[in-house]
Amino acid sequence: MDILEFTPEPDEYAWTFGGKPPVRRVKPGTALRLWTEDAYCGTIRSTADLASASLQMPFVNPQTGPFHVEGAEPGDTLVLHFVELTPARSWGVSTTIPFFGGLTSTDRTATLQDPLPERTWVYDVDSANQTVGFHAQSSGLELALPLEPMLGTVGVAPAAGEARSSLVPDMFGGNMDTPEMRAGATCYLKVNVEGALFSVGDGHYRQGEGESCGTAVEGAMNVAMVVELLKTPGPTWPRIENDEYLAVVGSSRPLEDAWRAGQVDMVGWLGELYGLDKLDAYQLLSQISEVPLANVVDANYSVVTKVPKRLLPGTTVYDGIHQHLRSTDLS
Amino acid sequence: MDILEFTPEPDEYAWTFGGKPPVRRVKPGTALRLWTEDAYCGTIRSTADLASASLQMPFVNPQTGPFHVEGAEPGDTLVLHFVELTPARSWGVSTTIPFFGGLTSTDRTATLQDPLPERTWVYDVDSANQTVGFHAQSSGLELALPLEPMLGTVGVAPAAGEARSSLVPDMFGGNMDTPEMRAGATCYLKVNVEGALFSVGDGHYRQGEGESCGTAVEGAMNVAMVVELLKTPGPTWPRIENDEYLAVVGSSRPLEDAWRAGQVDMVGWLGELYGLDKLDAYQLLSQISEVPLANVVDANYSVVTKVPKRLLPGTTVYDGIHQHLRSTDLS
Amino acid sequence: MDILEFTPEPDEYAWTFGGKPPVRRVKPGTALRLWTEDAYCGTIRSTADLASASLQMPFVNPQTGPFHVEGAEPGDTLVLHFVELTPARSWGVSTTIPFFGGLTSTDRTATLQDPLPERTWVYDVDSANQTVGFHAQSSGLELALPLEPMLGTVGVAPAAGEARSSLVPDMFGGNMDTPEMRAGATCYLKVNVEGALFSVGDGHYRQGEGESCGTAVEGAMNVAMVVELLKTPGPTWPRIENDEYLAVVGSSRPLEDAWRAGQVDMVGWLGELYGLDKLDAYQLLSQISEVPLANVVDANYSVVTKVPKRLLPGTTVYDGIHQHLRSTDLS
Amino acid sequence: MDILEFTPEPDEYAWTFGGKPPVRRVKPGTALRLWTEDAYCGTIRSTADLASASLQMPFVNPQTGPFHVEGAEPGDTLVLHFVELTPARSWGVSTTIPFFGGLTSTDRTATLQDPLPERTWVYDVDSANQTVGFHAQSSGLELALPLEPMLGTVGVAPAAGEARSSLVPDMFGGNMDTPEMRAGATCYLKVNVEGALFSVGDGHYRQGEGESCGTAVEGAMNVAMVVELLKTPGPTWPRIENDEYLAVVGSSRPLEDAWRAGQVDMVGWLGELYGLDKLDAYQLLSQISEVPLANVVDANYSVVTKVPKRLLPGTTVYDGIHQHLRSTDLS
Repeated sequence: MDILEFTPEPDEYAWTFGGKPPVRRVKPGTALRLWTEDAYCGTIRSTADLASASLQMPFVNPQTGPFHVEGAEPGDTLVLHFVELTPARSWGVSTTIPFFGGLTSTDRTATLQDPLPERTWVYDVDSANQTVGFHAQSSGLELALPLEPMLGTVGVAPAAGEARSSLVPDMFGGNMDTPEMRAGATCYLKVNVEGALFSVGDGHYRQGEGESCGTAVEGAMNVAMVVELLKTPGPTWPRIENDEYLAVVGSSRPLEDAWRAGQVDMVGWLGELYGLDKLDAYQLLSQISEVPLANVVDANYSVVTKVPKRLLPGTTVYDGIHQHLRSTDLS
Repeated sequence: MDILEFTPEPDEYAWTFGGKPPVRRVKPGTALRLWTEDAYCGTIRSTADLASASLQMPFVNPQTGPFHVEGAEPGDTLVLHFVELTPARSWGVSTTIPFFGGLTSTDRTATLQDPLPERTWVYDVDSANQTVGFHAQSSGLELALPLEPMLGTVGVAPAAGEARSSLVPDMFGGNMDTPEMRAGATCYLKVNVEGALFSVGDGHYRQGEGESCGTAVEGAMNVAMVVELLKTPGPTWPRIENDEYLAVVGSSRPLEDAWRAGQVDMVGWLGELYGLDKLDAYQLLSQISEVPLANVVDANYSVVTKVPKRLLPGTTVYDGIHQHLRSTDLS
Repeated sequence: MDILEFTPEPDEYAWTFGGKPPVRRVKPGTALRLWTEDAYCGTIRSTADLASASLQMPFVNPQTGPFHVEGAEPGDTLVLHFVELTPARSWGVSTTIPFFGGLTSTDRTATLQDPLPERTWVYDVDSANQTVGFHAQSSGLELALPLEPMLGTVGVAPAAGEARSSLVPDMFGGNMDTPEMRAGATCYLKVNVEGALFSVGDGHYRQGEGESCGTAVEGAMNVAMVVELLKTPGPTWPRIENDEYLAVVGSSRPLEDAWRAGQVDMVGWLGELYGLDKLDAYQLLSQISEVPLANVVDANYSVVTKVPKRLLPGTTVYDGIHQHLRSTDLS
Repeated sequence: MDILEFTPEPDEYAWTFGGKPPVRRVKPGTALRLWTEDAYCGTIRSTADLASASLQMPFVNPQTGPFHVEGAEPGDTLVLHFVELTPARSWGVSTTIPFFGGLTSTDRTATLQDPLPERTWVYDVDSANQTVGFHAQSSGLELALPLEPMLGTVGVAPAAGEARSSLVPDMFGGNMDTPEMRAGATCYLKVNVEGALFSVGDGHYRQGEGESCGTAVEGAMNVAMVVELLKTPGPTWPRIENDEYLAVVGSSRPLEDAWRAGQVDMVGWLGELYGLDKLDAYQLLSQISEVPLANVVDANYSVVTKVPKRLLPGTTVYDGIHQHLRSTDLS
C-alpha cells in the first residue's frame, strides 16, 4: 500500500476549502500519514495565553491539504477512512474567546452585553490511561476525562467556485465538529471540483456534543487515513459510516434547518437501501434515529442523524468499502 | 406505602396543564398506578384509520391528572419517579398528520406546498421478545424494534395563570417527548401553583430522537410512579436524573434556543455541585455534555443536555432522593 | 349608538387571554370608552424607578377586559375598530429590563453573560405639538419625537382551552406590539370561545419597528373603539385594515416562521379577493408586500405583512365594514 | 469627471465575490456606466421558459465586475453612489423555482413535500407611465405596478480569503435584495482586500419586502454610479444612506440574527454620531427604527434597520459624502 507522509510547514496551511492549489497529488487507494496543527495554530500553550491576544485572525483552524485525488470528478464520491488519530502533543488546550461560542452573544446573535471573560484551560494527556486532565481554576476540582481523539474539520472544495473559511461547515463538509469523525469512521463526500481537493484538521482530544464554549480540547494530531474514490453519485450532505452506524451531518442555521437537511438526506438513503417510499422511510427514521448535536457554535451549526445498523438488516452501503477499509493495516 | 390507582374516564382527561381542577389529591410519598390513553385518544387502530379523519381537534394528547400534591407550594421541587412503564395494549400506532411533524411545512413553518399524504402504521407489541414490529407498506420490509417505553408528556401547572395545551413543552414540562422519560428516571419540576397539579400521558412504546414525523409508536400505558416533594428551590427547566446521567430539558424555538436554555441551566447546576464559577462550569460542560434531540415537532422544540455521572465525582443531587426512590418496591 | 365606559380597578386587570370571566357584556355595534394602564402597572414614574425593583412579576402588561360579545361563537369574525387612542397621562416611560429585549440574551436566547444595566427614560407628552420628549442620560441630546399612539396588545381568548400570558402574541392576537394598531385601524380576529372574550391594553405613545429594547414609550391610554361581529369565518392570524393597507400579523419563532405564517395567510386572502390560484397570489405578494417588523422581543416575535390598497383594485373586504366604521362619530 | 463605460461579455460575468481578477481598475471619483444582466442570465423570456429547464446551475445571478479601486486597502470605506438605475429591457420576469423561495421548503428548510409548480410571469415595462404590468394566469387580473428599479446585489470581495456565491449576502454585501439599493442611495462597505474588488448586479424593476417567491421582477439594468473611497474605518455591515434615512443591512439566519446584527451596528452608529452610550443609543433606536425585511429567501436572510433623518439633528455622516455625491451630473 502506498503511504504518503506529509507535515505542512506553517506557510503551507490551508485556511479555506477551495481557492488554494493542492499540496500533493494522491491516487485512490493511497494511505496518508499526516500531521495537523491545532485550531489555535499552536499559539496557546499555557493558562496565561489568552485567545484574543494570541490569535491572529483570520488565521485560525489551519488545515492540512488540500490533496488532489487523481481521477476525482465532480459528482463522484470521495471516501476518507480514518485508521488512527493520535495526539501529537502531550497537552491539549481550550479557551473562551470573546463573542464566540454557544452561550455568549456573537457577531450574528449580536447583543449589547459585554463579552464573557477570557480564560484558557490546559489539559495534560495521559497516554497510559488514555485520559486528558481537566483542572478547574475556581476550585480544586480535577477530572481525568477519557481521551477520545477526533477531527473537527474534514472537507472538499465547495461547488460554485466558492472558497469557504475553514471555520464553516456546509455541504462540502468543513468544520462540522462532530465526535463521530474518529478513528474507525469512513466519511463520504461529494466531489465538487476536479481532484476533490480535500483537507483535514482541527484535532480534538475530546469534545462534548455541541462544543458549547466554541472550542474542544484542541490539539495537534497525527492522522493515519486512506483515500478512496467511488464513481457513484456523491451524497448531498457529508455521510459517515462506522461499524455501528450510518450517519449524515447537516449544517445550517437555525439549528432545526441543520437537522432537517440531514434527516431528509437520511430518508432518501433509507429509501434507497430498502426500497421504501419516502413515507415508509420517514416513519422508520422517526422511530430509530439517534440525533446528537455536533456544534452550535460555528458559522453554521451541525447536527448528526444516525441510524444503528443493529436495527437494520444487511446494511452494506457504498459497495462495502467501509468494511474493506476497516482491515487496513498501516503498521 | 400508599398506592393510588387511577384510570381516567374519557370525560376526566386533561387537555391542558393548568386550568383544570385536580382529579385526586395525593400526599408526598404516595405511589400511583395510572393508566394513560394514547395521544390519538385510542381512535386510530388500523392502517385504515387516518389521522385527519379520526382526530377531533383540539382533543388530542389526553393527560391523566392533574394531581394535587399536598403541601406543594410555588417554588418547591416536585419529584416524580417512574418505577415501571408497561404497554397497556398489544399494539401501538404512528401516523403522518397533515402539516404536522418535522419534515413537512406546518402552521408556523408555513409554505404553500401540498401536505404529505396521510398514512398509518400499526406496530404489534411482542412482550416476550420486548419488541414492536414495523411493517413497511411500500415494500416487504419488516423489523422488530426494541420496546423502549417512555412518557412523552409530564408536567405541572404553568406559572403566571397560564393554561397550556398538552401539545406544548416549556418550563413547566409538558410535551417534551424525550426518550429519557422512561422507567428508572426521576423528574424534577418547579412547582408553580399550590398543589403543583401534575399530569402525565402520551405513552410511547419507542421513539427516535427528534420524533421526526411528529408521532412516536404511540400507545396506552400503565404507569407506576412515586410522587415526592422537596422544599428546596425548584429548577428553572425540567431536570431528569437516572442512574447514569443528570439531564436538563430545554424547550423553545428556534432549536438553538431550546439548547441554550438547557445548557445554561446545566452550567448553573454543575457550578453548584462542584463550587465552580460559571467559566469553569462552561468549560467542563463543553467537554462532557451529551446532547440528544428530544423533538423538533412540537409547538416548542426540546433538547436534552446530559452529563454522565461516571465522569463526575460524587454526584448526589437533591439529597439523594433518586437513589432512594430507585429502591421502591411496588410489588 | 350605545357607549360603554369602563375603567378597571387594579383587581380587575386581566393578566391572561382566556382563563378569566368577563368584566362586561357588550352587544355587537357597541362603542367603548376604555382606560388602559401601562405595561408597568404605573409603577415606573421617574428615572429612579428601575424595572426589576418596581415590577412584581408576573403582574405586568395588565389588560382591560375581557369583554363578552353577545352572539359571538367559535369561528366567527370579531371586528374591533379603534376610533381614538389618546394618552391618559402627560408622560410615558421606557426601560431596559434584565434579560428582556432584543439586543440582550434572554431566558431562552440564554447566555452566560451579565445582563445589561437597568435604566429608565421618562418621556414628557407635549399635546400641543403632538410629541414625546426623549432625554438622553449620557449626553445632552434631547429630541421631540412624534406622538403616535397605538395599542401593543389586542386579543381574544385562545382556542383549545388555553390561557396565555398577556406578554405573548399568537393566533389569538395578544401582545403583537405593532404600530399598525392605531386609531383608524380595524382588527379582525377569529373567535375561539363563546363571547370571544377580548381584551386590550399595553398603550404605546410611540414605538420603533421591532421594539428593540423590549419596551416602547409605555403609557396609560384612553381608548375609544367599536365592537362588531361578522358571522363569516374568522382569519387564522389577526388581520388589520386601515385606509391604505390590508395587513396580517404572524407571530412565532424563529422570526422567519412569524413571517411565513403571515405571508401564507395573505396569499390566501389575495387569492380569495381576486380569484387567483396560489401561485398567482404568491407572485403578486412577492412584488407588492411591505413587511415591517412588529417586535423581536416577546415570547413569540411578530411580523406584519401589508399590501397597499392603492396598488389593488376594489379592495372591499369583510363587507366594507372598515369603511363603515371609519365614519363612527363618538363625539 | 471620468466616466467608465462597461458592458461585460458573458464570459466576463462574475459568479462570486472574491476569487476573480478585476475586469477594470478605477480611481476613486470615477463614474461608471455599467450594464448588468438579469439573475436568470437572460434565459427566461416568455411564460413558456421555466426556471429549472432554463437555468444552468450554478450560473445564476451574474455580476458586473469586479472593479479594482485604486488605493483601497483593507479596513477602508468603499463608497458606491447610485445615480441612475434604468431598465435595459422592455420586459422583466419572475418565476417560481423548485425548492427555492420563502414559502416553500428548500435545501435547508428541507421537507419531504413535493415542490411547488413552476410558473413564469413576464412583466412589460411601460416607460411612459413608469410601471410594470402584472398579468395573472389563473384569472384576468392585470395590474400596473410602479417601476421602482433597484440592485439586488452589491458587494466587495469578502475577508479571510473567501469567495462567496453571488446568491449569498453577508458582511461583504452581496445578494442583500433590499429595495433600499435604488437610485439616490449611497452604499458604504468595508474594504477587505486590496482594491476592494466590488461588483454589482441583479437588477430588479420592483420587489416586495422579503422577495417572497425568491425572485423580484428581474431585469437587465443600466447602472450609472460613482465610486469613492474614504480612508476611515469601514462598517462591519453594509450601510446605506439616502436623503431621508441612514440604514444598516444585517444578513444571517435565523432572521432574528440578521436583525440583531444590523441593530447592534446601528446602536454603535447612533452612539458615535451623538455621543450616546450604548444604553441611550439602544433606547433611541427602540423608539425610532423602521425595519423592513429585505429578503427571506437567500442563503442568508437580510433585514434593514433604518433611522429617519427628520427625527435626528445634524445627521452628516462620512464627511457628508452622500450630499456631495447627490449633486453628481452625468449628463
